[in-house]
Amino acid sequence: MILFNCDYNEGAHPSVLKKLAQTNLEQAPGYGADPYCRAAAKQIAQACHAPQADIHFLCGGTQTNLTVIAACLRPYQCVISAESGHINVHETGAIESTGHRIHTLPAEQGKITAEQIERVCKNHWQDDNPEFAPQPKLVYLSFPTEYGTLYSKAELDAIRRTCDANNLFLFIDGARLGYGLQAPGNDVTLPDIAALADIFYIGGTKLGALLGEAVVITNQKLKKDFRYFMKQKGAILAKGRVLGLQFAALFENNLYFSLARQANQLALKIRQACEAAGLQIAYDSPTNQQFVIFPNTLLTKLEETYVFAHTRYLNKNETLIRICTSWATREEDVQQLVLDIQKYAGK
Amino acid sequence: MILFNCDYNEGAHPSVLKKLAQTNLEQAPGYGADPYCRAAAKQIAQACHAPQADIHFLCGGTQTNLTVIAACLRPYQCVISAESGHINVHETGAIESTGHRIHTLPAEQGKITAEQIERVCKNHWQDDNPEFAPQPKLVYLSFPTEYGTLYSKAELDAIRRTCDANNLFLFIDGARLGYGLQAPGNDVTLPDIAALADIFYIGGTKLGALLGEAVVITNQKLKKDFRYFMKQKGAILAKGRVLGLQFAALFENNLYFSLARQANQLALKIRQACEAAGLQIAYDSPTNQQFVIFPNTLLTKLEETYVFAHTRYLNKNETLIRICTSWATREEDVQQLVLDIQKYAGK
Amino acid sequence: MILFNCDYNEGAHPSVLKKLAQTNLEQAPGYGADPYCRAAAKQIAQACHAPQADIHFLCGGTQTNLTVIAACLRPYQCVISAESGHINVHETGAIESTGHRIHTLPAEQGKITAEQIERVCKNHWQDDNPEFAPQPKLVYLSFPTEYGTLYSKAELDAIRRTCDANNLFLFIDGARLGYGLQAPGNDVTLPDIAALADIFYIGGTKLGALLGEAVVITNQKLKKDFRYFMKQKGAILAKGRVLGLQFAALFENNLYFSLARQANQLALKIRQACEAAGLQIAYDSPTNQQFVIFPNTLLTKLEETYVFAHTRYLNKNETLIRICTSWATREEDVQQLVLDIQKYAGK
Amino acid sequence: MILFNCDYNEGAHPSVLKKLAQTNLEQAPGYGADPYCRAAAKQIAQACHAPQADIHFLCGGTQTNLTVIAACLRPYQCVISAESGHINVHETGAIESTGHRIHTLPAEQGKITAEQIERVCKNHWQDDNPEFAPQPKLVYLSFPTEYGTLYSKAELDAIRRTCDANNLFLFIDGARLGYGLQAPGNDVTLPDIAALADIFYIGGTKLGALLGEAVVITNQKLKKDFRYFMKQKGAILAKGRVLGLQFAALFENNLYFSLARQANQLALKIRQACEAAGLQIAYDSPTNQQFVIFPNTLLTKLEETYVFAHTRYLNKNETLIRICTSWATREEDVQQLVLDIQKYAGK
Repeated sequence: MILFNCDYNEGAHPSVLKKLAQTNLEQAPGYGADPYCRAAAKQIAQACHAPQADIHFLCGGTQTNLTVIAACLRPYQCVISAESGHINVHETGAIESTGHRIHTLPAEQGKITAEQIERVCKNHWQDDNPEFAPQPKLVYLSFPTEYGTLYSKAELDAIRRTCDANNLFLFIDGARLGYGLQAPGNDVTLPDIAALADIFYIGGTKLGALLGEAVVITNQKLKKDFRYFMKQKGAILAKGRVLGLQFAALFENNLYFSLARQANQLALKIRQACEAAGLQIAYDSPTNQQFVIFPNTLLTKLEETYVFAHTRYLNKNETLIRICTSWATREEDVQQLVLDIQKYAGK
Repeated sequence: MILFNCDYNEGAHPSVLKKLAQTNLEQAPGYGADPYCRAAAKQIAQACHAPQADIHFLCGGTQTNLTVIAACLRPYQCVISAESGHINVHETGAIESTGHRIHTLPAEQGKITAEQIERVCKNHWQDDNPEFAPQPKLVYLSFPTEYGTLYSKAELDAIRRTCDANNLFLFIDGARLGYGLQAPGNDVTLPDIAALADIFYIGGTKLGALLGEAVVITNQKLKKDFRYFMKQKGAILAKGRVLGLQFAALFENNLYFSLARQANQLALKIRQACEAAGLQIAYDSPTNQQFVIFPNTLLTKLEETYVFAHTRYLNKNETLIRICTSWATREEDVQQLVLDIQKYAGK
Repeated sequence: MILFNCDYNEGAHPSVLKKLAQTNLEQAPGYGADPYCRAAAKQIAQACHAPQADIHFLCGGTQTNLTVIAACLRPYQCVISAESGHINVHETGAIESTGHRIHTLPAEQGKITAEQIERVCKNHWQDDNPEFAPQPKLVYLSFPTEYGTLYSKAELDAIRRTCDANNLFLFIDGARLGYGLQAPGNDVTLPDIAALADIFYIGGTKLGALLGEAVVITNQKLKKDFRYFMKQKGAILAKGRVLGLQFAALFENNLYFSLARQANQLALKIRQACEAAGLQIAYDSPTNQQFVIFPNTLLTKLEETYVFAHTRYLNKNETLIRICTSWATREEDVQQLVLDIQKYAGK
Repeated sequence: MILFNCDYNEGAHPSVLKKLAQTNLEQAPGYGADPYCRAAAKQIAQACHAPQADIHFLCGGTQTNLTVIAACLRPYQCVISAESGHINVHETGAIESTGHRIHTLPAEQGKITAEQIERVCKNHWQDDNPEFAPQPKLVYLSFPTEYGTLYSKAELDAIRRTCDANNLFLFIDGARLGYGLQAPGNDVTLPDIAALADIFYIGGTKLGALLGEAVVITNQKLKKDFRYFMKQKGAILAKGRVLGLQFAALFENNLYFSLARQANQLALKIRQACEAAGLQIAYDSPTNQQFVIFPNTLLTKLEETYVFAHTRYLNKNETLIRICTSWATREEDVQQLVLDIQKYAGK
C-alpha cells in the first residue's frame, strides 16, 4: 500500500539523520542548553528577522499547543479558535484540561475573521456582568489551517489590529508552516508571521524531522518563565540536542522550505488530476493537503492500492477524503496515483 | 571537559541509530500503531513475563509520571512518595498541576517503607472526617531511587502487601530501571517488577535511546482509556515508530541490560577510587549514579577537567556530588578520573 | 423601582427565617452532620420516592454544577449540554476550570434531544481514533431550561434510554426545579426526576431560601466519596445547619411547591398581558421566567418603573427581555405591570 | 451535651438575624451589587484604614483560600505555608486541585519565620535550573494560627520585608481574625494587617455570622478580575446581600470585636483551670482555642458532659484536646466546665 493519508508516515529527511549520527557521541548538556539548540535557535531567529525572539524546542503539536496556551492565559481567560481548529477537534480536550475554554467560531474554509473576533470581544465587554463568562485573551490560528487553506497577509493584518484593539495575544500554530509559506499564491513570509504573532511555532514533525516543534516568542511579556511551563507540562526533553540538531539540519540551505515546495507541487498534481476527473475539491488548498469529494465506488477502487484519510462521511455515495503529500512523497507514487485517478474516475 | 554529571549527555547507542536509518523511508501508520511499536511491545512483554500487559511508548520521564499518575487517581486522591522522589523535587509541580497532592514521606537512602505507607493510610481512615484530607490511593517509587539505591525484593513485597491491604496502586518509576536490575547485589528481576507494580516504566532516555519511556500496565483497571490520557497530555508522538524502533533495538540480544551492566561497573570503579581516597560515600548505590562528599579543594581541582552534578552544598568546605556513568561512558575517561582522584585526593 | 429581572431579589420565605431564628442558639455539629440536615434529607428522599438516595446540601448553582460534574467524569471525559445551558453561558468556564470540555449542542427552545446525544456518541465511537477527542460520559440538562421551557416525560424517557445505551450519566440541574414541576401542562413529577437522573439538584436559592441547593444522588456509583469532592471545591459549609434548616422549612407542608405554583400563576398573568398587547413570546415557558420581545419604545417607558433582564439585543428596535416572578413577587406589583403594559403597548 | 469542640456550633449573633429579618422583603440586586454589601465594604475599609481596598464577600474558608490563592499565582508558582496550615491539613488538597503545590515548612507553635521563607527563596533561585521546581510566589499565614497562637508585629514586619525582597505576595487567613486581634498581649491591629498583607480575609463564619468571609485586597495587582476568579470557583453568592448584611451587623458598634474579646476571656478561664489542675498547655494561645493535653481518664469523665475536638492521639494515656469558645459560648457552661475540671482532675 502507498500511504497518502498524512504527512508523518516516514522517518526524517536524510540530512537530519546524518546530523544526529555525526554528533552522536559528542557530549553536550541536557534540557536544551546544548550548542546545537543554540545554533538552531540562531538560524531560526535570523530566518524570522527576529533577533530578539526566544526560541524553544518541544516534541509535538498537542504538547506545544497546550503549553503555549497555558502560558498565555490566566485561569479565567479563554482562547478563540475556529471550530475546525486542531485544538478543538484533535487533542482530547488538552486545552480544557489546563482549565481553559476554547471559544469556537464557525469557520469558512477553516479560517476565522477579524470581524468574528471583534464581535466576541464586544459581546463579552458589553455584558453587564462580563465576569460571568470566560474573558477572551488569545486568538489561535493555524497557518495553513486544518484544511490546508491560507490566510492572506491582509487577513492576518486585520486580525492583528483586532488583537491590538482588544488586548488579545495572537498565537499561530505552524505545525505545517513551511507548506504554507511555500504555497503558490501565498503572500505571507516567515518574518511576517514573526511580526504578526506574539508567539508561534515552526513544525518539524510534519516537515522533515523525526519529531520537534520550534516555538518562537516575540512578545516580551510571554518570554518570562516559559521554561517553567515547559517543564511542568513534561515538554523539556532531557536530550534537547535531538531537537536542536534536527532544526539545525532543516534550516541549513533552506532545506525546510525546499522540501515544502516540492511537497506542494506534488499535491497540486494530484489536485489537478482530481479536477480533470471532475471531482469536487472541498477546500481551496494550495498546500500539501488536498480535500476531495470522492464517489465511494472510485474510492473503493483506489483504496486497493492507496491509503487516504477519511475526513467526513458525506452521504451514502460520497466521502470527503484528505490526500497528503510530504517532504518524503515519491514522485513516482504521485504519478501512479494520477494515472489511476484518470483510469478509474471515468467509470 | 569530560561530562560525568548525568546519564544523558550523548545521543543514542549506535544500534538504535542504525535501526532508525534502516527503516527511515518505510511508510508506517502514526501514533504508535506501526509494526515497530508492536514488535517492541511484544519483546518487552516477553521480557516482563507479562503477556497480557499493555505497553505504551512516551517521550520523557516527567511526561510519563504526570500521565500515569493522572490515570491512577480521582481528583481528590493523592500519591505517596519519598520526599526525595523525582516527582517531588524535579518536575516543577507537574503532579500538582494535574490537581493532585504528593503526600511526601521522609526517606532513608531515598527509600520509603511499607510501615510508613501503612501509617499514612491508617491516619487517613481513622480520622473522623477523612474527606477533609486527600485520600491516599497510589504509591510512587523509583527503582533505582534518586540516590541510586535499590529496594530489596523483600522490601518491595512488603510494600505490595501494604498496597493490597489498603487498596492502593503501586507505580514504579523505572527511568533508570536497567541500571537497577543489573546492579551487583540486586535481587529483583524485571518479571518481579511487572508482578509487583500495577504500572511501571522502563526508561530509554537514560539508557541508550535518544528519547523514550515504555510504560507497562499490568493491572487491568488501569488499561482502559490510557491512550486518552496520553493524548490529552500531549504524550502520543505522531511518529510513534521513533520510540518503537528504539526499544526494539534496545531489547534485541539484551542490549539494554548489557549496556546497564557495563555502566554500573564503571561507576563502581569510580566509587572504589573515592573510597580508597578516603572520601565519604553518601548513599549506598550499586548503580550508575554515585553520590560522594568532596572537599571543595579537591572538587575545584577535578572540575578543571570533569563536570559533575552538585547535589547539595553541605558546608563551606564540602559538597555532595553526583557522578554518573552511562551506556556511553568511555572506559578511558573513567580510568583517567580514577587516576586524577588518586592524584589530587591526597593533597 | 420594582424588580422583575430575576428570582433572587429578596431574602427568604418567612418560614425559613423563622426556623433559623428558633434554632439559632441550639448547638449542633458542623459540616452537615447536624439533625436539621438529616431531617431535611429524609423529607427530600421521601418526596423523591427515593429512600436510598444520598442528599447533600451545597450553597449555590455554579458550585453545585462544578462539583457534581467533576464527580461524574474522569479527566478526559466531557459533558454534553445545550449551547444555552447555564454551565456554558453563565459560569465563567467553571467546568473547563475543572479540566472538562462542555460538548455543546444547538438547542431548540433551550432543549436538546435524545437523537442529538445519540449522534454525539456515535460520532465519537465510530472515529478511528476516538481517543483524540474528549469521551462523552455525562448529559447535563436543566429542568426548567434557561428559557423556562420544560422537557416532557416522553422526552426525558428517550434521553434516559440514550444514556443507558451509551453508558452516560444524566445530571439534571434543578436550580428552578419547583417552578418546573408545578407548571401547568408539566407531566413530570419529582419521583420521575429522581428515577430518570443519576444525580440532580433541587434549587433553594431561587425558591424561598437565602441560599442552598440540595443534591440528590440516586446512582450508587456516584455516591462514593462525594463529600471529598465537596470539600475540595469549598462546598461543605461549616454551619451546614443553615442549609438543612432552610430545606426542612421548604419541604414542610409542601411550601416549596405552593410557592412555585403561585409564582408561575403570576408569570402567566404577565405573559397573557404581553400576548394581549401583541408582543411576541420568544419561548414557550409555562414557568416563572417569561421571555418577551419588546419594542424599545415600550421598554424604555416601562423601565421607568420596572427592572427587567436584557437577554439579547435583537436589532435597533427590539430587545429580548426576561421577566421573572418568584415566591416573593407581590400580586399588586404584577397587577400594576399588567396595567402598564396595556397602557403603553398600544402607543 | 455541651459542645466546646469548635466555634461554629450555633447559628448567628441575634443582631445578624435581626438585620436579615428586617430587610428580608426589600428587593436588591444580586451577586454582591446590593447596597448592604456596599455599606459593609465601606465599614470594613474604614476599620482597616484602607479606603482604596477592594472588599469581596465569600461563603467559607476553603472556598476563600482556594479562590485567593488561585488569583495570586501563575500555574507554575507555589504557596509557602506552615505544615500545620489549614490549607495543608484540612482542605482535601483544594489548593493542589487548582494546580499549585503547597511548599510546607515545619512550624513552631503553628508559626513560620521570615528566615524560613528567605531560605526557600534562596534555595530556589540559586539552583542551576530553578525552572525544575515550583517558583515561590506567595506566603500563606493564619492569624491566629491553627493552634490559636499569634504572630507579633515584629514577626509580621520581618515576613513582609522578606516578601518584598523576594517578590512574594503575603496572604493572611483571618478565619478567626477577630479572636486574634482582641487577644491579650496581641500587638497587631486590623490596620496593621491591612498594611502588611497584599490580601487577607476577615472571618465571619466563626465569629457571629451564619456564614461569610470578607476578602480585603490592598495590593492593586490583585484587584483586577478578582470577580472572574470568584465566579469560576462558584464563590459569588446569588443573594450576596446575605453576606453583606451580616458583615454590616458585625461591624456596627464594634460587635465583631466585642464578641471576640468575650470569647477569649472565657477561653482564658478554661485555660487557667487546666493549668491549675496541672494539665499541660500544648500551645501558647491567648485566643479562643485552647490546646491541652488530657489524661484519657479525665477526658473520658468530662466527655460524659462535654464535647471536645481530639487533635492528636499522643500515647496510650494522653490525648491532645482542642477546647473552643466562641461568640455564643455561655458563661455558665464555662463555669461548669471549670468546676468539673477542678473536680475530676485531682482524681
